[in-house]
This record gives sequence, C-alpha cells and structure tokens, in this order.
Amino acid sequence: MSTTYKVLGMTCGGCAKSVTNAIQNVAPDVTVEVDLDAKTVTVTGAAPENAIKQAVADAGFEYAGAA
Amino acid sequence: MSTTYKVLGMTCGGCAKSVTNAIQNVAPDVTVEVDLDAKTVTVTGAAPENAIKQAVADAGFEYAGAA
Repeated sequence: MSTTYKVLGMTCGGCAKSVTNAIQNVAPDVTVEVDLDAKTVTVTGAAPENAIKQAVADAGFEYAGAA
Repeated sequence: MSTTYKVLGMTCGGCAKSVTNAIQNVAPDVTVEVDLDAKTVTVTGAAPENAIKQAVADAGFEYAGAA
C-alpha cells in the first residue's frame, strides 16, 4: 500500500531527508519517497494519516492533504 | 543563557525551519537561531544538550558538538 501526500515547504535534499526521518520516526517500517518538484511525499507501508500529518507539521513543513 | 552548536546538513531555509521546530518540540521555551553559512544553531534558554542532540539527529541532520 502506498499513499501520496502533498507537502509544501521542502526545497532541498536536506528538507527531503528531514521529512523522511520525521515520518519514519512515527512509522519505522515505511519507505518514503520525496519528489521536490512535484512537492509530494509517497509513503509505502502502513502508516496512519494523522501520524504522518502531525510528523510533517512538527518538522516544520506544511501537510497539504492527499496528492 | 545561550549555547551554539555545530549542525551539518542544513542547506536552505526549509532545513533551518525544520531544525528549529525539532528543537522547540523538545524545548518549547527556547529561541533558536540558525546560521546556514556558519552551519551553527544557537539556542537561547534552558535546554538539555542531549535532548537537542537527539532532536537534531531525529530530524535528519548531523549534530557536530559545540561550536
């Protein structure tokens, strides 16, 4: 299962890594792919959307819903 | 009281914001100043170094000790 979310505010590889880590902190078993151009984050594996939303926000980025 | 740490891997304003949020998540009352050129983070207020170290690492950046 994979879900793609829109996440705003990521502008470089450091941001991408930060969002990835934030999500994996709350859902250790998922894989995370960031597309900086599309401003999307694709999460493969089971992770509750609320936890992802909170993790992204806590990391300082803007969760903007399903992509 | 303010303490300056070396933090590697921050390359843009998004990274700076992410590190700031990560630190403020574990120490809500501090102020955080990031200098991208100097690769430093200055934390004003009381915050245990271990908590900052962990927060920076969890956010995907490299804590490199006192600056």
